[in-house]
Amino acid sequence: MNSPAPAIETLVNHQVRLAARPVGLPKASDWQLTSEPVGEPPEGGVLVEVLALSLDPAMRGWMNEGRSYIAPVALGEVMRAGGIGRVIASRHPGFAIGDAVSGLTGVQDYLALSADGVRAAGLARIDLGLGSVTQWLNVLGMPGMTGYFGLLDIGQPGAGETVVVSGAAGAVGQTVGQVAKIRGCRVVGIAGGPAKCDWVLRELGFDACIDYKAAAPEGVKRWDAVREGLKQHCPKGVDVYFDNVGGEILDTVLTRINLKARIVICGAISQYNATAAVAGPKNYLSLLVHRARMEGMVVFDYADRYPQAIAELAQWLKDGRMKSKEDVVDGSVADFPATLNKLFAGENFGKLVLKLADA
Amino acid sequence: MNSPAPAIETLVNHQVRLAARPVGLPKASDWQLTSEPVGEPPEGGVLVEVLALSLDPAMRGWMNEGRSYIAPVALGEVMRAGGIGRVIASRHPGFAIGDAVSGLTGVQDYLALSADGVRAAGLARIDLGLGSVTQWLNVLGMPGMTGYFGLLDIGQPGAGETVVVSGAAGAVGQTVGQVAKIRGCRVVGIAGGPAKCDWVLRELGFDACIDYKAAAPEGVKRWDAVREGLKQHCPKGVDVYFDNVGGEILDTVLTRINLKARIVICGAISQYNATAAVAGPKNYLSLLVHRARMEGMVVFDYADRYPQAIAELAQWLKDGRMKSKEDVVDGSVADFPATLNKLFAGENFGKLVLKLADA
Repeated sequence: MNSPAPAIETLVNHQVRLAARPVGLPKASDWQLTSEPVGEPPEGGVLVEVLALSLDPAMRGWMNEGRSYIAPVALGEVMRAGGIGRVIASRHPGFAIGDAVSGLTGVQDYLALSADGVRAAGLARIDLGLGSVTQWLNVLGMPGMTGYFGLLDIGQPGAGETVVVSGAAGAVGQTVGQVAKIRGCRVVGIAGGPAKCDWVLRELGFDACIDYKAAAPEGVKRWDAVREGLKQHCPKGVDVYFDNVGGEILDTVLTRINLKARIVICGAISQYNATAAVAGPKNYLSLLVHRARMEGMVVFDYADRYPQAIAELAQWLKDGRMKSKEDVVDGSVADFPATLNKLFAGENFGKLVLKLADA
Repeated sequence: MNSPAPAIETLVNHQVRLAARPVGLPKASDWQLTSEPVGEPPEGGVLVEVLALSLDPAMRGWMNEGRSYIAPVALGEVMRAGGIGRVIASRHPGFAIGDAVSGLTGVQDYLALSADGVRAAGLARIDLGLGSVTQWLNVLGMPGMTGYFGLLDIGQPGAGETVVVSGAAGAVGQTVGQVAKIRGCRVVGIAGGPAKCDWVLRELGFDACIDYKAAAPEGVKRWDAVREGLKQHCPKGVDVYFDNVGGEILDTVLTRINLKARIVICGAISQYNATAAVAGPKNYLSLLVHRARMEGMVVFDYADRYPQAIAELAQWLKDGRMKSKEDVVDGSVADFPATLNKLFAGENFGKLVLKLADA
């Protein structure tokens, strides 16, 4: 095997482990910071230094017990996270020292994987010529894949149709809206705050963006104001709604859908930390009235088509037809808990990334 | 024109009109009984004697103001209803005296229609050789069409898949379950009370039926018992759920769906008389976890394919592969208000029909 520049035996792996299942918003005591020496990779395996971690709304679901599309993170286990890393030692024929890789690295500085572990982590070489480390966690990574396949495969927008996307300035939302624009749709975002809305309008070229946090006119309820915004900016109604948030925004959009509308259920960040029962969409009978469809999607189902999507998205990035915004926190794994809560507070602007080391 | 046996000028048309928009369950004062003389049909029109009326959960929605798939019944207007009638006078080339017809007759004894009115009412000749008057309001009528197209076009069940249907002994449910059995599915009904469940099992040949009104074992909540029933009777999970009821039953089934499950939203009788907001399905994120779909359907969209469905269903009726149960109330239009409320109380057993006259 090859040997990396810093002696492996001098390295320390800092890790964030799940210590307790959170009730509501995760708090400090739900996490445990551990450290252990870094070992040589086993025969057939690799050793990866983690450069950057993706912070995703889905993480909150992974922390809960119960049947879901993926097993929960066990108590005491290193918190699951997607990340970008660099191979620093390899006994695997598919990886060489220096290779940039993406995969489920977990919230830690290093990971030594067996051949089986390489497969389980979905470790794959990536080409940093197509995009930066942070772009590989954004438009070329899971959020980009989610937006691309969720919009095109589930939403199936036609040119000239109206697409509404919530969390418009977020990781998934920015891809959804830009791909929909490229496909010739009218695109209306929903985002929180004027900065996000301005960016979505001016930089990403959406046709409109509704600020759901804006003060409503006197005597008007907030969600009625959002509804008025939809009425104004979607004069032909809503054909596709890509829902990242759930809750009141989903209910409000349901009042404005067209016949045969498609609602992509991608997430429900408004509900993930709820300690009460999830609020179901009380306007769901609009699906009946409008012969409309609400359908869930999980990005992992599209894994064999990622390369095609990455090629197309990377070309659009290169052409300048697609922009990518990341909110990068420079820090260490110890900053993970606080950074994650920034996500749930909606304080991030663009894809939230925790950068651990330079590429 | 031809002349009917009883002189038209001696006939009196009794009608039930909507007097007020109900809050919750319709009450007597929401209705007005009127009568007027019966006139000759205009040039190009027909005069129809109504033989039987269909009582449908959808009627409750028609009584509300607001945008829906069909305009609300106006205050003072004869209540909308599907019915079967007999042509007693005709100045229309497509209809002769004695023809049996189906269409939106309204809650009245007679209707004199212009040529435009014939189209607006969807008046069509029916063949009483294919089924009785009450069967033409059930399996060969709107409920049958709803069940047939909702199941096959939206639910898309494959042979060997598990189909669950609520309101299993009701008009739509009985067609759904029987068609699913014919298509080779495992079929589990949900119905209220042992008589309905027994009938669904023994007469219709469902594989199982869950009585949601049954007393749960001590210490077990009712909906947990329904959930246990689903677990027991759908050992491979639920692939298609045909929902006629909404509410807690929808939420319970959502906990048992399979990957790529299809939920057909046909109605939500549990919610139609709610004076509070409709209860949204709080388990809707199961759609995400299971990449499942919830889709609404309205039977009128399939009008050009009714003949094909009627031919197939009539053949099954004739073969004895399909049974049809109607709960027939013999009476007059004045019995309409009380009979409608029987529907909302779940007291009907089979398709609820108000019979006004012999065929």
